Amino acid sequence: MQEQSSLLVANAAKFQKWFNVTVKESTEVVAIDRAAKKITARDVNNGQESVHPYDYLVLSPGGHAIRPPLPGADLPGIFVVKTIPDANAIKAWITEKGAKSAVVVGGGFIGLEVLENLVHRGLKCSLVEMLPQVMPPYDPEVVEPVHDRLRAAGVELHLGDGVSGFEAGPAGSAALLAVKTQSGKTHAADLVVLAIGVRPETTLARQAGLELGSRGGIKVDERMRTSDSAIFAVGDVAEVKDFVTGEQTLIPLAGPANRQGRIVADVISGNEPSRFRGSQGTSVVGLFGLTLAATGASEKTLRRLGRTFRKVYLHINNHAGYYPGAKQIDIKLLFDPTDGRVLGMQAVGEEGVEKRVDVVAMAIQKGGTVFDLEEAELCYAPQYGSAKDPVNMVGMVAANVLRNQHPLTSWDELDLQALTADPGCVLVDVREPPELDKVGKVESAVNMPLSSLRQQLAKLQDKDKKYYVYCQVGLRGYIATRQFLQAGFDAVNVSGGYKSFQQQLQEQQRPAKL
Amino acid sequence: MQEQSSLLVANAAKFQKWFNVTVKESTEVVAIDRAAKKITARDVNNGQESVHPYDYLVLSPGGHAIRPPLPGADLPGIFVVKTIPDANAIKAWITEKGAKSAVVVGGGFIGLEVLENLVHRGLKCSLVEMLPQVMPPYDPEVVEPVHDRLRAAGVELHLGDGVSGFEAGPAGSAALLAVKTQSGKTHAADLVVLAIGVRPETTLARQAGLELGSRGGIKVDERMRTSDSAIFAVGDVAEVKDFVTGEQTLIPLAGPANRQGRIVADVISGNEPSRFRGSQGTSVVGLFGLTLAATGASEKTLRRLGRTFRKVYLHINNHAGYYPGAKQIDIKLLFDPTDGRVLGMQAVGEEGVEKRVDVVAMAIQKGGTVFDLEEAELCYAPQYGSAKDPVNMVGMVAANVLRNQHPLTSWDELDLQALTADPGCVLVDVREPPELDKVGKVESAVNMPLSSLRQQLAKLQDKDKKYYVYCQVGLRGYIATRQFLQAGFDAVNVSGGYKSFQQQLQEQQRPAKL
Repeated sequence: MQEQSSLLVANAAKFQKWFNVTVKESTEVVAIDRAAKKITARDVNNGQESVHPYDYLVLSPGGHAIRPPLPGADLPGIFVVKTIPDANAIKAWITEKGAKSAVVVGGGFIGLEVLENLVHRGLKCSLVEMLPQVMPPYDPEVVEPVHDRLRAAGVELHLGDGVSGFEAGPAGSAALLAVKTQSGKTHAADLVVLAIGVRPETTLARQAGLELGSRGGIKVDERMRTSDSAIFAVGDVAEVKDFVTGEQTLIPLAGPANRQGRIVADVISGNEPSRFRGSQGTSVVGLFGLTLAATGASEKTLRRLGRTFRKVYLHINNHAGYYPGAKQIDIKLLFDPTDGRVLGMQAVGEEGVEKRVDVVAMAIQKGGTVFDLEEAELCYAPQYGSAKDPVNMVGMVAANVLRNQHPLTSWDELDLQALTADPGCVLVDVREPPELDKVGKVESAVNMPLSSLRQQLAKLQDKDKKYYVYCQVGLRGYIATRQFLQAGFDAVNVSGGYKSFQQQLQEQQRPAKL
Repeated sequence: MQEQSSLLVANAAKFQKWFNVTVKESTEVVAIDRAAKKITARDVNNGQESVHPYDYLVLSPGGHAIRPPLPGADLPGIFVVKTIPDANAIKAWITEKGAKSAVVVGGGFIGLEVLENLVHRGLKCSLVEMLPQVMPPYDPEVVEPVHDRLRAAGVELHLGDGVSGFEAGPAGSAALLAVKTQSGKTHAADLVVLAIGVRPETTLARQAGLELGSRGGIKVDERMRTSDSAIFAVGDVAEVKDFVTGEQTLIPLAGPANRQGRIVADVISGNEPSRFRGSQGTSVVGLFGLTLAATGASEKTLRRLGRTFRKVYLHINNHAGYYPGAKQIDIKLLFDPTDGRVLGMQAVGEEGVEKRVDVVAMAIQKGGTVFDLEEAELCYAPQYGSAKDPVNMVGMVAANVLRNQHPLTSWDELDLQALTADPGCVLVDVREPPELDKVGKVESAVNMPLSSLRQQLAKLQDKDKKYYVYCQVGLRGYIATRQFLQAGFDAVNVSGGYKSFQQQLQEQQRPAKL
């Protein structure tokens, strides 16, 4: 096992030697006197206070892990995870109590990473999440493979159910703690980890009368200056602009925080400073061999803001299928229907996921469109990608839609019940019969395999009907839809095919959001 | 072992069923009658000729592997590799003759991939390359790790030496063939593979009087139209514009070829066609666990064209160093010194290499600058990257140069002999003594370790001297240079540190280009 100290990127001694910067450890700033430009600091070991003048003050207190005001939330064995001591406390509890089971509350980045580690540690784990999905910043159908992967790893998922309180396990019971949920359930465990989010640590800023933003973070301008021009705020505590939507947001991620620090340093040292252009919310999480990543806006964000958008789904190999070891990536792309500007992408899979998200992150940064994705010239050798990379393919699908070259819909836009009842509509599955036998099909669909579709179309009479066409992932649906159209039929391809249908179905079958 | 047929992306039957397109196999087009808009085709099995009219004609004959007109080049056991039958012929030769050794001529993409496969097959391999480096499109110092990796895999490298001819191994000799080189050497082997490049297959186009470009490919416009507006050319046979430099070029890669095919289809079918924006030459090759990738212009291309540019080197972990398994990536970034526009990037390493090149490929496509790289918001979790991703870091280093915030030079810009002789110059190694003992230092350098540099600078008198500062990879050189500057000394950081020095040194020690 590696030394714990190797987790620390820097320490006080290095700051002194490298940068001639004195780091006062174990020292809490308790007050800011803005008029006098002084701070009061307290030594946390001996309580002694000291006053320090400043020309500029940079606030970087981060956020604090939320501990909800619920009955029993302070019981021994209930932990939050933010610092190395937090992690040590959990490890010590597991060892001392011989803990065999854990409930993690909250299915965001931290909750999932904690889950994976507890599973590796050998604990029987459950996840309780108030929302009907894990990873709240992502769209629900996108995270279905994450749900599957968690279940496959033995994690019990309790989605769409909030925690109502905690109790110590009754004397003689097998578990040390009991987690009560709003639906009336009880989940017993020897350890509870709360991972329900972070809140910007604005205590000091509020005491000093600094302006806060609409999301509860410290309000700053593009140079990270607060409402007091001598005071800056950076990192999780600062409220920033969403680069894609323009709305105020809190992005507690390390990349933007680093960038903000650099901007403030430039302002203070009189260099020509750049402006913080806002954050795209580019994020990634890995668990149990799966990678989930995104950049830009999600569909739910766009819906909440009432923005118009279009979307396409793609399920595609990370590299050429003829090279061994190709893994499928599920991609969802959101774009502006007027000019094709990329608004966001989410992807999940085992290999090459965050690479595609990174490329699209750069495209979004530069105001790129789906036409740019279509034209992207990316590294291709069969072990790395395809001559038409997933980024190209998702761009091509979207560009076909925008150019009105290909009618496309998605499962959530279809009312399957109404469609089935409507004699003017036909749902067509164009996969080959052995595939249907193996993975199933949409109940009301008729099977017209692509391999003989042209002959069947030559005999088909119903030119007044509308044909909704799907295959496994969308490619053959595309080919089939074109054959329908060329033969004079009205047809539309269902984006993402049966694979997307399954993910959508799973999502609909989950309990609704409370 | 997988079926060989799985290597084929499509076949005639699929084209017929899916697209209603008839593929005439084993049929060679032998003449184009442009006036009559007819082609003459010959059945290669029975020699029978047939004439076919066309409205539009698309030429996509690709290139042919070059077999140099050298003595003995047609001897049995000497192969080129372009098609699956070529590969089968090599395998058959190895089996039938019990071949134990091979010489590969040419160290480009194909040559290296062939080498890796022959080594895996158990053959003792040598590489003969006329240039003093493998992978000619790349800059020489960038491919040094590839040379190291090839040698480590047991490949004998003969760089800077062209082949002059081939002979059958004399009766009774251990090897079946002998490769003679221009320097007078003889390399014996049981198998020779020629991988010295491809040439556009323009025979038919020339016969038909179509205009060729300056590089010998078929000349086309942005819609891939040849000098005859009814005839298009796509793929390796077409000459295209270099997206970065604007010059004519041949890019025999699959990605651009795919894109070109789509453009032609749009033109012919009357859709609103896009324009081929040119090729960035984005490329990747993997061998023996190493990945080498690039996008945009190389330094040698920029020098050949007389363009002004600046460059920075970076040797950086692919992901956070505190997460196990981080691997170093060597990066070279070229950019415009006036506006910071990214001109090209080359990178080599074991993990995460082509991801960074893909991101920069998108940046180049969108006219991005080093400031955009600096600000890129990419996926970060410790197993995927760093809060400051390598793309950010190389952007920051370059932006520091452009903003005149940090004096930077590179080893090839320094005349070490003159610098050592000049009493006004000091070369300073700021690494700690144990590192120098372990990996060595530049002979004439004085050691002033960063850990005590501030104290040493306080005592240092020579304010008139110029200090050339380096560390292992550049980061501490940066910190040290800033300390020199703040203390009132004239100092400059040497990009890429000792790591780049070693790569530059290896390059200089190779035989010169013939």
